Amino acid sequence: MTVTSDKITARPAEAGAMAGLAELIGCAGTPDKLINKGLCGRFHDLAALDIVDGRAGISLFKSEVFSLPFRLEMMERHPLGSQAFIPMSDEGFLVVLAEDENGRPGAPRAYRTEPGQAVNIGRNVWHGVLTPLGGSGVFAVIDRIGDGANLEEHWFDTPYEVVAD
Amino acid sequence: MTVTSDKITARPAEAGAMAGLAELIGCAGTPDKLINKGLCGRFHDLAALDIVDGRAGISLFKSEVFSLPFRLEMMERHPLGSQAFIPMSDEGFLVVLAEDENGRPGAPRAYRTEPGQAVNIGRNVWHGVLTPLGGSGVFAVIDRIGDGANLEEHWFDTPYEVVAD
Repeated sequence: MTVTSDKITARPAEAGAMAGLAELIGCAGTPDKLINKGLCGRFHDLAALDIVDGRAGISLFKSEVFSLPFRLEMMERHPLGSQAFIPMSDEGFLVVLAEDENGRPGAPRAYRTEPGQAVNIGRNVWHGVLTPLGGSGVFAVIDRIGDGANLEEHWFDTPYEVVAD
Repeated sequence: MTVTSDKITARPAEAGAMAGLAELIGCAGTPDKLINKGLCGRFHDLAALDIVDGRAGISLFKSEVFSLPFRLEMMERHPLGSQAFIPMSDEGFLVVLAEDENGRPGAPRAYRTEPGQAVNIGRNVWHGVLTPLGGSGVFAVIDRIGDGANLEEHWFDTPYEVVAD
């Protein structure tokens, strides 16, 4: 018997669809404030940093660059903190999210960001690993700095295949 | 009498030269940790977020893009918090810093970052406004979210001219 992978279609990232799992961070609409003599717009306070028993810090991730279709073998979550991924290239990336179902990820949902967008994944929310789809693969990551176990992984018996829409 | 501007040469950003005023955030050397089955390197906890009477948050700045020579008319500082600038394009930007001299900026120093580098400006350190030198002009900014006066400006009688090296 051949086991075929379930396919997940990567949809354009949209704040409403991701609500409750992650925040989409982008320059949407008009800035909250114009600064620098009107030459710069500030889009203010776009993500809830949710850190338990530690502090928020800035790290850099330098990842391999991937392409679709992408084989989704594993999802992970961080019980002690949110995790924001900020691309340092003007390229989109793949974000895979899932609701929790009795301690394991439910049906994964896949989103593809636009250039200029970042994502803040909620504390203890199941997500795929960092998956740049272009550019340098360098991201700034705003997440918890602290001791203690802050990683839970779930490996799928049959990997999913994330495909372009 | 003609007043000529003093020239400041923008040097390559270097962590040592900026020490005490700002932190250079980049993927220097080997990662602190390999994650995602070795496909991603984590450069861990690269900046000191120094926030007084508030909390750190993520905002986006969308700025005009500048070129050198740049006319430096003003410097500012934020007494209540550090401010990290993370470019969301793979392009460098201009960073102007100065020591304090009796409540006003001393001789400004100018640095030009490499693509893939971010900068965290120390709390209450005099600096120029955000000055992208290429790309989309979109930056993630990690700074203080909170009420109260957190901006002090100093306008120069005679602007400086920042030039390429």
